[in-house]
Amino acid sequence: MSEVLDLTCDLISRPSVTPDDAGCQMLLAGRLQRAGFTCEHLRFGAVENLWATHGSGAPVLVLLGHTDVVPPGPREAWTSDPFVPQVRDGVLYGRGAADMKGSVAAFVVAAERFVAAHPAHAGTLAILLTADEEGDAIDGVRKVAQAFRERGQRIDWCVTGEPSSTARLGDLLRVGRRGSLSGTLTVKGVQGHVAYPHKARNPIHQAAPALAELAAKAWDDGYESFPPTSLQVSNIHAGTGANNVIPGELQVLFNLRYNPHWNAPALEAEVAALLDRHGLDYDLRWHRSGEPFYTPEGTLRAVAREVLGQFAGAPPEESTGGGTSDARFIAPLGAHCIEVGPVNASIHQVDEHVRVDDLEALPGLYARLIERLLL
Amino acid sequence: MSEVLDLTCDLISRPSVTPDDAGCQMLLAGRLQRAGFTCEHLRFGAVENLWATHGSGAPVLVLLGHTDVVPPGPREAWTSDPFVPQVRDGVLYGRGAADMKGSVAAFVVAAERFVAAHPAHAGTLAILLTADEEGDAIDGVRKVAQAFRERGQRIDWCVTGEPSSTARLGDLLRVGRRGSLSGTLTVKGVQGHVAYPHKARNPIHQAAPALAELAAKAWDDGYESFPPTSLQVSNIHAGTGANNVIPGELQVLFNLRYNPHWNAPALEAEVAALLDRHGLDYDLRWHRSGEPFYTPEGTLRAVAREVLGQFAGAPPEESTGGGTSDARFIAPLGAHCIEVGPVNASIHQVDEHVRVDDLEALPGLYARLIERLLL
Repeated sequence: MSEVLDLTCDLISRPSVTPDDAGCQMLLAGRLQRAGFTCEHLRFGAVENLWATHGSGAPVLVLLGHTDVVPPGPREAWTSDPFVPQVRDGVLYGRGAADMKGSVAAFVVAAERFVAAHPAHAGTLAILLTADEEGDAIDGVRKVAQAFRERGQRIDWCVTGEPSSTARLGDLLRVGRRGSLSGTLTVKGVQGHVAYPHKARNPIHQAAPALAELAAKAWDDGYESFPPTSLQVSNIHAGTGANNVIPGELQVLFNLRYNPHWNAPALEAEVAALLDRHGLDYDLRWHRSGEPFYTPEGTLRAVAREVLGQFAGAPPEESTGGGTSDARFIAPLGAHCIEVGPVNASIHQVDEHVRVDDLEALPGLYARLIERLLL
Repeated sequence: MSEVLDLTCDLISRPSVTPDDAGCQMLLAGRLQRAGFTCEHLRFGAVENLWATHGSGAPVLVLLGHTDVVPPGPREAWTSDPFVPQVRDGVLYGRGAADMKGSVAAFVVAAERFVAAHPAHAGTLAILLTADEEGDAIDGVRKVAQAFRERGQRIDWCVTGEPSSTARLGDLLRVGRRGSLSGTLTVKGVQGHVAYPHKARNPIHQAAPALAELAAKAWDDGYESFPPTSLQVSNIHAGTGANNVIPGELQVLFNLRYNPHWNAPALEAEVAALLDRHGLDYDLRWHRSGEPFYTPEGTLRAVAREVLGQFAGAPPEESTGGGTSDARFIAPLGAHCIEVGPVNASIHQVDEHVRVDDLEALPGLYARLIERLLL
């Protein structure tokens, strides 16, 4: 059994459902310390975070990952126990195999090999791990980044091991993510009988012109490789069921996916101003699920493009699609961030898996990135 | 016990929930025949209708009523059995006491007295009863009116005994009713992920401008004593609950209350044209629950105003408010129609009731109307 497969299996065996780290970081810290890394355990609330560094000064390259996993759901839905790693037909099954215990194991193996071969490398090689990426993401990298800001920790480059590949390892290089912002809007009216509309105030009628304007609004024309910012109403509900009653309120859920032209406070102000212009009586609650980040052309993208191209046999697609990742917290520190990891087809699903061949190629891929950046 | 109270109790004892007449019309036909009326039983489908006439030629005055009642709901919610009439503290309780077995009994008692006193009165006094007013109203007065049209039955005046009074007997004279038309609109889109709006078509976004235009549309400025025609959206629903899914369709229920400027086909065409202008992909189903009618100033209104004023001590409010009644089917035959009946506060509710004093005044009120019109 290869070293990375062995370590990945060891991690999968620890049922580290967010925010429980289940001993993963202690295991990895032990290995990294033996390899010469300095380890700092940053605990915020109930969440373990590990900051391991080798070398000093600039440039600072961070390998960013998480040891927590999403819940496996019912055991009987899985072919084999989600926390008992099993290889079948060249594929490793288990919760976290792809997202992202395989990448974390590959980080550690690559880092060990690199510092053993190049003990006096340039700058700093760091590994940052959290156990709160899949959950609320309150006490994880968000808090770590805040601490880094306070103590002036410089980060030049950040490689996240999120499963970015689509069909085969290395076919996609993620260079940014859109932000996501959700709103829950309640438009208040006055209930009444449809036969006496002058005694009621219909919140559907009140809201319709505002919704039409929100739906038609062009927020921007896109940003670099990002698509235009978009607002989509996902749910709308009003009414008692009866067709002779004007309802007393209307509920609207909507979501904004936005590029770096915007940030959450600016979008929130824009939506509120629009609703105010329409004279609505409303409540509006916001949920900020992630600011965007974007890494422009530069050393990191150029190196990653070349390394991935060698692995995959063709230049990777460079994308800003998908959901959110912890890179959004590191990017505001001034770091260029990319995401490079295994194929993501099975993540968050039953029978999550990674091809053993891909897993065993990962340490070499990460080691190559480290070499190109710190030698 | 007075004659009208006795007869009302006899009718309440027959549980004539639509469309079951439960023998009410046979009972009344027997009395009317003994009084000299010619009775014709017009049965359509499962529905009994009774057409009883006295005299001949013009003018033709019809007293219009229904023997069916709405279901009583759970027996235990009533203070006494809904089909066992009971007088408590000068009030008669029972399903149909106010809507409208009391009026029907009063019609018959008034008619008996009138023809006994004036056997050679002018024109025709008729009583028309159906057992399908509270239900689908398919095989009731709608069908009778069709038969009348085919055989050229003339009707000059029609007095419906619907409970029109609001606080005390005779305080309101109904001289028309708005029409009611309901639409069930399904706007079709294409479901998708909010992150990829270009791959979906959001039916909420598509529909919003059309709903805004429907809500803002001024249909007319009113008609005589009718308020303006009004469209109200009563229910709107779309969404899976998740905030990251663009729904595949939107459901909208709306209702139009309209005055005699309009009829159902014209409104339906207007709404469809508006939706078409917005380029929506939609299904639209209509439910026509009643065309409007209106009785302009003339003999019937003048006589009724005077008679009600004498009873109530003040001129009645002349109104076109409220829901629908069978007058909508008689009015298109060229008849002037009004509605005069007891206080409507308890209709369709548990413990439906009528004040015994009001009930006992009703035959005199109807007899006075008959005298003023046919002597």
